[in-house]
Amino acid sequence: MKRLFDVDPWKIKTESLHHEDKRLQESLTSIGNGYMGQRGNFEEGYSGDGHEGTYLAGVWYPDKTRVGWWKIGYPEYFGKVINAMNFIQVDIQVDGEKVDLAKDDFREFYLESNMYKGTLYRTFIWSNKEKTTEIHFEFNRFLSIVEKETASIQVRAEVLKGNPEITLRPGLDNRVHNEDTNYDEMFWEQVEESTQKPAFVTAKTVTNDFGIERFTVTGAMINEVTGLDQKESESEKLQVRECFSGKVTKGSVVTLNKYVALVTSRDISEERQKGTARKLVEKAAEKGQKQLLSEHTTAWKERWQKSDVNIHGDEESQQGVRFNLYELFSTYYGEDSRLNIGPKGFTGEKYGGATYWDTEAFLLPMYLSVADPKVSRNLLRYRYDQLEGAFHNAQQQGLKGALYPMVTFTGVECHNEWEITFEEIHRNGAIAHAIYNYANYTGDETYLLDEGIEVLVELSRFWADRVHFSKRHQKYMIHGVTGPNEYENNINNNYHTNNMALWTLEYTLETFKKVVGQHKEKSLNVTEKELIHWADIVEKMYIPYDDELDIFVQHDTFLDKDIRSVDTLDPSVRPLNQHWSWDKILRSPFIKQADVLQSMYYFPDRYTQEQKEKNFDYYEPLTVHESSLSPSVHAVLAAELGKEDKAVELYARTARLDLDNYNNDTEDGLHITSMSGAWLAIVQGFAGMRVRNAQLSFQPFVPKGWDGYDFKINFHDRLLDVTIEKDKIILKLEEGKPLDIILYGEKVTVKDEFQKNI
Amino acid sequence: MKRLFDVDPWKIKTESLHHEDKRLQESLTSIGNGYMGQRGNFEEGYSGDGHEGTYLAGVWYPDKTRVGWWKIGYPEYFGKVINAMNFIQVDIQVDGEKVDLAKDDFREFYLESNMYKGTLYRTFIWSNKEKTTEIHFEFNRFLSIVEKETASIQVRAEVLKGNPEITLRPGLDNRVHNEDTNYDEMFWEQVEESTQKPAFVTAKTVTNDFGIERFTVTGAMINEVTGLDQKESESEKLQVRECFSGKVTKGSVVTLNKYVALVTSRDISEERQKGTARKLVEKAAEKGQKQLLSEHTTAWKERWQKSDVNIHGDEESQQGVRFNLYELFSTYYGEDSRLNIGPKGFTGEKYGGATYWDTEAFLLPMYLSVADPKVSRNLLRYRYDQLEGAFHNAQQQGLKGALYPMVTFTGVECHNEWEITFEEIHRNGAIAHAIYNYANYTGDETYLLDEGIEVLVELSRFWADRVHFSKRHQKYMIHGVTGPNEYENNINNNYHTNNMALWTLEYTLETFKKVVGQHKEKSLNVTEKELIHWADIVEKMYIPYDDELDIFVQHDTFLDKDIRSVDTLDPSVRPLNQHWSWDKILRSPFIKQADVLQSMYYFPDRYTQEQKEKNFDYYEPLTVHESSLSPSVHAVLAAELGKEDKAVELYARTARLDLDNYNNDTEDGLHITSMSGAWLAIVQGFAGMRVRNAQLSFQPFVPKGWDGYDFKINFHDRLLDVTIEKDKIILKLEEGKPLDIILYGEKVTVKDEFQKNI
Repeated sequence: MKRLFDVDPWKIKTESLHHEDKRLQESLTSIGNGYMGQRGNFEEGYSGDGHEGTYLAGVWYPDKTRVGWWKIGYPEYFGKVINAMNFIQVDIQVDGEKVDLAKDDFREFYLESNMYKGTLYRTFIWSNKEKTTEIHFEFNRFLSIVEKETASIQVRAEVLKGNPEITLRPGLDNRVHNEDTNYDEMFWEQVEESTQKPAFVTAKTVTNDFGIERFTVTGAMINEVTGLDQKESESEKLQVRECFSGKVTKGSVVTLNKYVALVTSRDISEERQKGTARKLVEKAAEKGQKQLLSEHTTAWKERWQKSDVNIHGDEESQQGVRFNLYELFSTYYGEDSRLNIGPKGFTGEKYGGATYWDTEAFLLPMYLSVADPKVSRNLLRYRYDQLEGAFHNAQQQGLKGALYPMVTFTGVECHNEWEITFEEIHRNGAIAHAIYNYANYTGDETYLLDEGIEVLVELSRFWADRVHFSKRHQKYMIHGVTGPNEYENNINNNYHTNNMALWTLEYTLETFKKVVGQHKEKSLNVTEKELIHWADIVEKMYIPYDDELDIFVQHDTFLDKDIRSVDTLDPSVRPLNQHWSWDKILRSPFIKQADVLQSMYYFPDRYTQEQKEKNFDYYEPLTVHESSLSPSVHAVLAAELGKEDKAVELYARTARLDLDNYNNDTEDGLHITSMSGAWLAIVQGFAGMRVRNAQLSFQPFVPKGWDGYDFKINFHDRLLDVTIEKDKIILKLEEGKPLDIILYGEKVTVKDEFQKNI
Repeated sequence: MKRLFDVDPWKIKTESLHHEDKRLQESLTSIGNGYMGQRGNFEEGYSGDGHEGTYLAGVWYPDKTRVGWWKIGYPEYFGKVINAMNFIQVDIQVDGEKVDLAKDDFREFYLESNMYKGTLYRTFIWSNKEKTTEIHFEFNRFLSIVEKETASIQVRAEVLKGNPEITLRPGLDNRVHNEDTNYDEMFWEQVEESTQKPAFVTAKTVTNDFGIERFTVTGAMINEVTGLDQKESESEKLQVRECFSGKVTKGSVVTLNKYVALVTSRDISEERQKGTARKLVEKAAEKGQKQLLSEHTTAWKERWQKSDVNIHGDEESQQGVRFNLYELFSTYYGEDSRLNIGPKGFTGEKYGGATYWDTEAFLLPMYLSVADPKVSRNLLRYRYDQLEGAFHNAQQQGLKGALYPMVTFTGVECHNEWEITFEEIHRNGAIAHAIYNYANYTGDETYLLDEGIEVLVELSRFWADRVHFSKRHQKYMIHGVTGPNEYENNINNNYHTNNMALWTLEYTLETFKKVVGQHKEKSLNVTEKELIHWADIVEKMYIPYDDELDIFVQHDTFLDKDIRSVDTLDPSVRPLNQHWSWDKILRSPFIKQADVLQSMYYFPDRYTQEQKEKNFDYYEPLTVHESSLSPSVHAVLAAELGKEDKAVELYARTARLDLDNYNNDTEDGLHITSMSGAWLAIVQGFAGMRVRNAQLSFQPFVPKGWDGYDFKINFHDRLLDVTIEKDKIILKLEEGKPLDIILYGEKVTVKDEFQKNI
């Protein structure tokens, strides 16, 4: 645990620069606009330890995985998020000396990521070694969420002492490489660069052995400088720099407005990129920084209007939950259905891949409530559009139907551990559940009965082929899986997986009935034989259950383990994955994240309160919560079971996970896909929000230490503000028609405002 | 299945060169002398598809494995057998045109690997395109088994037509690389080369990130040529060539005697290599080819004298079993206890590693009988000397005692699949069993009670830490293993593994009693608590057993599978590992190689005939025998159970595995470590040889299609010739004192010769 930044409701700010924690600072001040983003790197560069990283949504490279052994069904390549063109670069020299905070003297340092406005600001007073020159620098940066290809970087330098020669060299630099390369190879090669205005660089990903499309990227820039003279521009392979220089007298001010436009071959063909990027950057410069900024901050304000969470009396939590929303929205706001939400977003390159099951399991439930339904619908569309890839994944295993990938960019699996790729198949259940979730939440079945049912049928075809019939038990079983508890591999009859398969088949059969006789039915080509087989599996699915303990069993031999609770562990061996061998972890009874309980989280209405309680009481004490996805699910369940203290304790692990560097790995990037955790714990947990058959309900309490909280819910064309205080709950309809809500089990109708004492 | 070479009792010979099967030809004509070896490459080179490979025992490179994900307890590197200096090279030009059988016209091709003499011979008549020149070439090559650093390459060219200019350029060339590199990197770098006589090349393996010693290798050569003039020698980085050229008239003969000496830093320090290699090659040249060859063939004759197997009336089998012995002896003959028997020997680079459990499980039982006991003892010594590595492997998993590696060069694990490295731990049992085997076979307990007990204690410490106590069952269990059936991973309570652990603890306790009170006891530091714990595990080890079927169960959930026999499989999906995904294989009931039955093979006296029969009848029909190690074990068991046809059928799969390219992968190299299979099937299977408490017994039959067979057995300072004919058995004592033998359950004494009608 380490806290670099001050507690503040809307800002990530600090007056200190900790050289030893530069990477952590960079992660926590990352900005993004869904199209591109970058770590909180310094424009002028930094020669100390750090990680310069800019990432472009959907731009990736398939790296080799075949080192050593390879078997049929293993993925061909490992899909890597690639470090892309550094476009923030503004090299600064004072009297020929490069400004570098890693080495230089400076004071009055201040760094601020403003979450309300979506901007990154930095200032400091720099002095030369001899203290004869002092300059006050200011940096302002944002990536427009209105003009997604556009970035604005502003530098202001005011000379406080001396009459220095100042040189600014704003540039575009694609000589970047990934920290996670296998052999330090470059993923980019030169296409073209020009210093002719607007200067640009075009680069292309190198060839690969897997027939994957290569990406071309062009960045163009316009630099408006006052107070310096323009010198000759410079270009080298993969980079261009403009150069401004001049003697600046004490009291004078130099300013740079750097406009960047960046296009990729995802939208613009290589041939047209140069023209498009130049045109876009000219348009941006014409509009000017002020106008761009104003549009940008207005758009951010609108996002907050729909989604803000207010915590009364706990500023740390307040900052935590806003930070999570801010970074999530910076990563994804649903504009482009070809994109998804990567584990590090634009904040790092670890883990590779754009899409994990996290999206459906943990993010969609939040996006459904905090943004327009089209945001969530685009997440579903993403999977629908990748059905071909899912067919491919199943075929690779010799199986029918669709197997959605564990990690992907295109729908085709691109992770490289067999125990995950073809074993952690409960993710297929998460995809089905997301379709259910959307229909249930929005009350709109049009998606379900069109694209949704297509996906469900293919998922069911997969499950029907993936189960086997055990003659000995006269039951269908699922062998060889990894459950959500990734601290076990290749287990048999994982309760959660079997349950997800069973439920998916059930839900498919139920949904299929709704399209019988309609035009859609024909296109699905479902045979009578299939329907009978699916129903037979539903009837005879093996469900591991222990009579004695009266719990569902995580998998066939789980109870044979040396069962002991987490509190018997020496704290020095935590987290286990940093201290124990994988051998020891696999054989241990310790659970990484909700497994049996994941089912209970997904389906609150399919279990009795007693069942939930017994299973929670058995499994939670065995759970180490070493996935950032774990605490929130448990917090929601604990809240539901009236274990308020436990819920608050678990919530605390998720709210400031990155801000307090709880897992000691935030320097690699933020835990983007678990950033919905705090929101889920507050809204589904503390406020007990549920949606059943398109009917919204709440069962709120105020956690200890808080005075109260309020949050926004987007539901059926309404915008609802929910305020929970110690003695009352206030429901305010900010937009839309009156709405019936279940509050503590009783139906109430909300028009304008509804209050109830509690 | 493909047969390239003629059937012949002592020769691997052919009059055809099949360009499309060049790699297969190379594998099958590999030669070696335990110190170095190479594939049957052509001296003059070959521009078509092929694989030039020379390998030096104990010279290897640790390659990267960390691509993608890595967890605690995973090995640091993947140990690769590396392609080393090509020293057979003799570039040949006729009138400036390179002789190249891939492109040129030739006739009367003949290639012969002579197993009796240990030589490789080749001849052909070459002609130029215009047919104006014809030359008769002959090549003779051997790697001396007497002077292990020495190779002799002889080239003879007789001009049959025309008066061509002939150029011979014998060379040493270390610009070689592995086919299994990850990124086409070179494993060798330049040290020095010189054309000053004797010319030499010194090369060194490149640096590595793992602190593993680098190897330096020096080859020196002397070339004696008649009929040509010596020209200036040539040297480039990592290679030297001498050059001989001249006009040769029709009827004239050119000869080259190329002597090579090759030393490595395993024996000779880098500084001394140049001097030593030159001295050795001078000594060889002085001795001359004839003398070297005569010593070499005499030594081979002595090997055959001790080990030959004669099959009467089945020439294919005859060739098969001799080929196996020949290639095994070429790989290992026990001279150097730092070496072991790699999966491909000197015939290829696939699989990496020098040592697998195959050595103890399948090779030692044969070496015990066909060679001096010191050969086997050196195999045990190898493991004893690598105890440090085995401690390291256990520590990497957070476990006590010794975990012998699945694959290694040094004792430290160097394979890179977690499901093998820390799961396939039954290998630890094979090490213990080898110690038992040696003591039982030789009747000599001095090794057992000295180094043997040290190893046993450390193995027991490992098992005692690796089991866990299941409170639910009040039994010790072993979770998370891979049994010999590598078509399943991460299973629980594998019968064979549990049984090997149990037996090892038992055997250690029993052996420990023998050293109590002796000097050795103290050095072992075994505590009373340990002894009690070991005995407790022996008493309470969980043994998976099924009442209904009355069989031992392969592992906990094996019987829940969709059990069906191999004969229900469509033949087009065989071998499974080339047609099915790993997912499908893992979940299938099909067994790669003996698993429960491996225990029954190891311990024939611990099971009743009925137990063996029931388990064989259940498991063999599920077995696909897709490990080259599988058929022989089953053949031995089948023979014991009186299933003579089954034994013969299984024998047939192992006898000519490589000669008939049965698994369609011999082009990658020979299946060296399964080459004892045919011998085991004949001697332990058909002849029913067993050793119980140092007492030899036979229970022979003559398989259908054979007239009879005879073989040699080295046993307790005797050399015994065992001849089995349809109507009689003849035991001939060729060396040593009279010996009591159990024949069909009756004790007989063999002096000189003993005959019995059957």
